Amino acid sequence: MKEFFKVTDLDAVFAYLNHFSAVAAEIINIEDSLGRILAEDLTSDINLPDFARTTRDGYAVRAASTFGASEGSPAYLTIKGQVGMGEVPSFSINSGEAARISTGGMLPEGADSVVMIEHTEMIDATVIEAYRSVAPGQYVITVGEDIQQAAIVLTAGQQIRPQETGLLAALGCETFKVYRKPRVGIISTGDEIIPIQTAPKLGQIRDINTHTLFNQVRQAGGMPRSFGIVSDDYDTLFERCSQALQQSDLILISGGSSVGTRDFTIEVLSNLPDAHILVHGISISPGKPTILAEVGGKQFWGLPGHVVSAMVVFAMVVKPFLYKISGRTDLAIETIGIKAQLARNISSAQGRVDYIRVKLVNQKGSVWAEPVLGKSGLINTVVKADGLVAIDQHTEGLDSGAEVTVIPFD
Amino acid sequence: MKEFFKVTDLDAVFAYLNHFSAVAAEIINIEDSLGRILAEDLTSDINLPDFARTTRDGYAVRAASTFGASEGSPAYLTIKGQVGMGEVPSFSINSGEAARISTGGMLPEGADSVVMIEHTEMIDATVIEAYRSVAPGQYVITVGEDIQQAAIVLTAGQQIRPQETGLLAALGCETFKVYRKPRVGIISTGDEIIPIQTAPKLGQIRDINTHTLFNQVRQAGGMPRSFGIVSDDYDTLFERCSQALQQSDLILISGGSSVGTRDFTIEVLSNLPDAHILVHGISISPGKPTILAEVGGKQFWGLPGHVVSAMVVFAMVVKPFLYKISGRTDLAIETIGIKAQLARNISSAQGRVDYIRVKLVNQKGSVWAEPVLGKSGLINTVVKADGLVAIDQHTEGLDSGAEVTVIPFD
Repeated sequence: MKEFFKVTDLDAVFAYLNHFSAVAAEIINIEDSLGRILAEDLTSDINLPDFARTTRDGYAVRAASTFGASEGSPAYLTIKGQVGMGEVPSFSINSGEAARISTGGMLPEGADSVVMIEHTEMIDATVIEAYRSVAPGQYVITVGEDIQQAAIVLTAGQQIRPQETGLLAALGCETFKVYRKPRVGIISTGDEIIPIQTAPKLGQIRDINTHTLFNQVRQAGGMPRSFGIVSDDYDTLFERCSQALQQSDLILISGGSSVGTRDFTIEVLSNLPDAHILVHGISISPGKPTILAEVGGKQFWGLPGHVVSAMVVFAMVVKPFLYKISGRTDLAIETIGIKAQLARNISSAQGRVDYIRVKLVNQKGSVWAEPVLGKSGLINTVVKADGLVAIDQHTEGLDSGAEVTVIPFD
Repeated sequence: MKEFFKVTDLDAVFAYLNHFSAVAAEIINIEDSLGRILAEDLTSDINLPDFARTTRDGYAVRAASTFGASEGSPAYLTIKGQVGMGEVPSFSINSGEAARISTGGMLPEGADSVVMIEHTEMIDATVIEAYRSVAPGQYVITVGEDIQQAAIVLTAGQQIRPQETGLLAALGCETFKVYRKPRVGIISTGDEIIPIQTAPKLGQIRDINTHTLFNQVRQAGGMPRSFGIVSDDYDTLFERCSQALQQSDLILISGGSSVGTRDFTIEVLSNLPDAHILVHGISISPGKPTILAEVGGKQFWGLPGHVVSAMVVFAMVVKPFLYKISGRTDLAIETIGIKAQLARNISSAQGRVDYIRVKLVNQKGSVWAEPVLGKSGLINTVVKADGLVAIDQHTEGLDSGAEVTVIPFD
């Protein structure tokens, strides 16, 4: 039995993350911010809020004026005025006084808390009864309680979720600097592969990988672009790779990394200018024949031809590398997955990481991970699956009922 | 103490899902498919594959020709020919014969399995030795093994992930029918709220909610559109709501659902033509003062003004309603969350569902959910959080160490 390539352990593959650096930054508008990666630290130039505001509808008071108040023995307070929303009160509050205020309103000078409207009764136009005592600071957001002036509130490399958008809005950042989305070129190889618009003749198969990888790239924050299908011909492949290299930050080729007669990927990658083959084979399954080359500082990935293998390698191996050039600082695929119980025995080979496709099922209060069996050429098996379970290289297999961590598909 | 609104239980709120139906469908290209919702069942008009293909590089054989083969006693096979990729073999395989084939190649007539190239040795140009026996069907994907002709492979209401894209590609679906993205109008109310481009005067605060909700809507598959900030004035609000209603499938107003003097949302909603107030107050915290009105068959949501409350209500209550009109059939927020241990005691009121913001921490092999404390007016508390823990209405609180299920933020 021949050894066709010397496989690299997954840890050693990830050590190459350091070889690649982030793409350039660009300025975007807050409306286009979802999922983008900040390219600058953001320091607040204000206190948020920059005035003490109430979180309830009621009366602004000095807390001491309400001490001991109850239903049986209310505190009587003189109405000093009313605080208009968005306005600075023109009066101050002394002991025994109160001012009508609505949620979000600015506390008048002298007031330190708010009695909720539900706990008061108007006696006449000038006096209220308060039935509850409040503590100083109660129902009040103090100056800088949300964000302190000069604090770093977001850091470069952070991904923008809806709540970070809210924070950017609070600080008045209508535009800001993010990393541009990495351009990812996708090439399919194989004489039997045809464009999806074409009716396959016997022996031909439509190009599944390009479209699957296209949306995996998009989901991971990249800008996918298909460079089409290349037949198993050295010159054509070399030319197409050179073209993709010029127009992309990272390239994915699928199909050409097996040991077939017409597989030229490794030759092409070796002959591109300034090329270094970093990885030729990874100790994972599926996905063993994966290639990683560094070509002029860019990543060139040779992915397996089977769609499940290509998907798994993208999800578990390529994604952190795409994240790296996206400027992200959180490169981990998934530090915290979904705990589940394995629904049947699974065997696994030692010396490699096995990725098992699983479907999640909620039954009798427990979450079960049901392995979806099937060859890695079957797209249907991943359509049925919700995620992957990794079985590490030191484990020979797992028994039914074992606790596993499921890395969900995005 | 006054009862200002009669709160509705969450289950009763979700019962209103039936009031609303999906938006219309549109035809899209496969390149724009990520995350979209299929509006038609998809039946395969082909077997996939429609020819028996191999999953390995090697030799196509009749399995019986290899029975008993081993390193010590190889099977000798006559090379009948070679299968070109994408081609129909012009010969058939009989007992004792083999044909060179590459991964994805079509099996010649008569062959039922493949001996891997690693398990063979060429003797001369016409004969190979095979060192392993193979079983019928080994390393072969049979006709229809992935997808059976006439089978329903995807159903209306299913969301398109990368793997569904692959399946669509396999079936040659370059364009297909999906539900169009619901148009979601967003209105902020409050005299103290100013556009984010403006420098706030004392007592004013920038419009955090519009931008937070904007990206929550986008993340949930809607098409957000801001209708700006409306001051606390009945006529202006009525006019803006009417405008948003004409141009949206669902409307979110935030700020006007508390009990302030200038809160006109409920009045406006009641007076719009063909309006029914379905919900005025929900037994959840934060988010109690939420309003749901049905206006001419469309959803009109009055969300609390505090940003955390608005975010939580959108994430836990509005989202299934948005999913419903998006055509999705999986309306559950999250049937399977992340199990974690609570890092400190949390108190909760009976009779309502409490949503606790938590940060996930991986420590000593366990996942801990650390409550992020702070008022619901503080955007910073959700920036620090990874998700929410729901404490149901029958539970008074949870002890440190209790197992909880975290619903992660998207």
